[in-house]
Amino acid sequence: MIFKCKFRVHWVDTDTAGVMHFSNYFRYFEACEEEFYRSLGMNMNRLRDEFGVLLPRVEVSCKYKSACRFSDEIEVALIVREVGPKTVTYQFTVTRNSEIAAEGLVKCIAANLDWKAVELPEDFARVVKSAQ
Amino acid sequence: MIFKCKFRVHWVDTDTAGVMHFSNYFRYFEACEEEFYRSLGMNMNRLRDEFGVLLPRVEVSCKYKSACRFSDEIEVALIVREVGPKTVTYQFTVTRNSEIAAEGLVKCIAANLDWKAVELPEDFARVVKSAQ
Amino acid sequence: MIFKCKFRVHWVDTDTAGVMHFSNYFRYFEACEEEFYRSLGMNMNRLRDEFGVLLPRVEVSCKYKSACRFSDEIEVALIVREVGPKTVTYQFTVTRNSEIAAEGLVKCIAANLDWKAVELPEDFARVVKSAQ
Amino acid sequence: MIFKCKFRVHWVDTDTAGVMHFSNYFRYFEACEEEFYRSLGMNMNRLRDEFGVLLPRVEVSCKYKSACRFSDEIEVALIVREVGPKTVTYQFTVTRNSEIAAEGLVKCIAANLDWKAVELPEDFARVVKSAQ
Repeated sequence: MIFKCKFRVHWVDTDTAGVMHFSNYFRYFEACEEEFYRSLGMNMNRLRDEFGVLLPRVEVSCKYKSACRFSDEIEVALIVREVGPKTVTYQFTVTRNSEIAAEGLVKCIAANLDWKAVELPEDFARVVKSAQ
Repeated sequence: MIFKCKFRVHWVDTDTAGVMHFSNYFRYFEACEEEFYRSLGMNMNRLRDEFGVLLPRVEVSCKYKSACRFSDEIEVALIVREVGPKTVTYQFTVTRNSEIAAEGLVKCIAANLDWKAVELPEDFARVVKSAQ
Repeated sequence: MIFKCKFRVHWVDTDTAGVMHFSNYFRYFEACEEEFYRSLGMNMNRLRDEFGVLLPRVEVSCKYKSACRFSDEIEVALIVREVGPKTVTYQFTVTRNSEIAAEGLVKCIAANLDWKAVELPEDFARVVKSAQ
Repeated sequence: MIFKCKFRVHWVDTDTAGVMHFSNYFRYFEACEEEFYRSLGMNMNRLRDEFGVLLPRVEVSCKYKSACRFSDEIEVALIVREVGPKTVTYQFTVTRNSEIAAEGLVKCIAANLDWKAVELPEDFARVVKSAQ
């Protein structure tokens, strides 16, 4: 399954070079991930409040193919790449005018409130796997 | 007393117009406020952990006089404008090349962890007043 | 006329206090302003490319009434408060669960690419006034 | 050569989980890179104005080892990992209390103002290589 969200590049996302700052792609990856959880009836508040679990990132990467500018409409596509006992890895593709602008990976780990790695809550792992 | 901090405008602070985005001045106001507390042996962690108090902002404003650009050295000056029973108001001036770039006000209120307004912790009020 | 946009508070918008950082309200004000221009067939790129005009902010303010948290749906309402020869002032209200979370003002000035104040482009002033 | 910068984690850098948001590490990598250029008598303004060259990022990554929290002092260490004809790659290590918090890579490419890849300006390549 591919989960897709559309966004507009905001003025504040851009820098002196007239393009979206490279760090802001990760903000849009995460915004898409948030909508993905919402689409599954999940969210990071519920993870924390019901299961005492946070989802810090352990590894992220991004390759930039072409620049995004103010007011561009971008589409972020999320694919569940891998679900491990304690981790989930998402692959993101940012498209602008049907052209790939960036490709990224974000690996999250389940952590309890003492910040120790724990197994993904079963309900969470199940719904995320169902979207693979 | 005037408390001063120097900062460099970062690339990420700027936007397509080639200048620091107006919202980022508030980030530098707060960075200066953080250093101000540190200079007094205080910080927002201690406020929360020892006194159960947070300092949300209730009112902020900024007037922009001239633009700041990437790599500019800016000086942020903080003055304690008013200390009330539950609030403290700071006045900020941003200077670049001896010219005023921006002037702002930030009014904070003491809130407990249930987000109700409370009196400023006595220790905190005392040291902040001592810097007036 | 009241122009309204809905947004979700993102994880990255929040801070250690568990609430949206006060500076981020200005990002949502601007995101709403961008959509407002788009709804009028305008945008800041066209202003710059056709008229050689940028819209820096000269004065902004915000009063915070209640906290917004991760995943909250917020509605930002924009009203054109005043259109002067060189300036336009917007009033913003952020509502969450039918409760006012914040109220702000943003005054923009038309500037040419040498960063001198100029009159608002006639086309721009006309469409903005039509939305008053 | 290892180039090092110290920073304080700001309140605004943190999120609801009480830790620095993962995307902000890239802001500190870049802040360190900016200081590195400054230490060499270079900066991105000069690159653009004298050579017509920008330095967009083509690939970035980060591994997170332990969390950074508000008010933590962090040290960012930069190593020039590779200088190619058109690219330069930096390796970053973030240390907090002598413990590694994060490790990252940032690969930049020289681009002209039409956003085409070009060779690194000779002066720039020379001083960056001298810091290897």
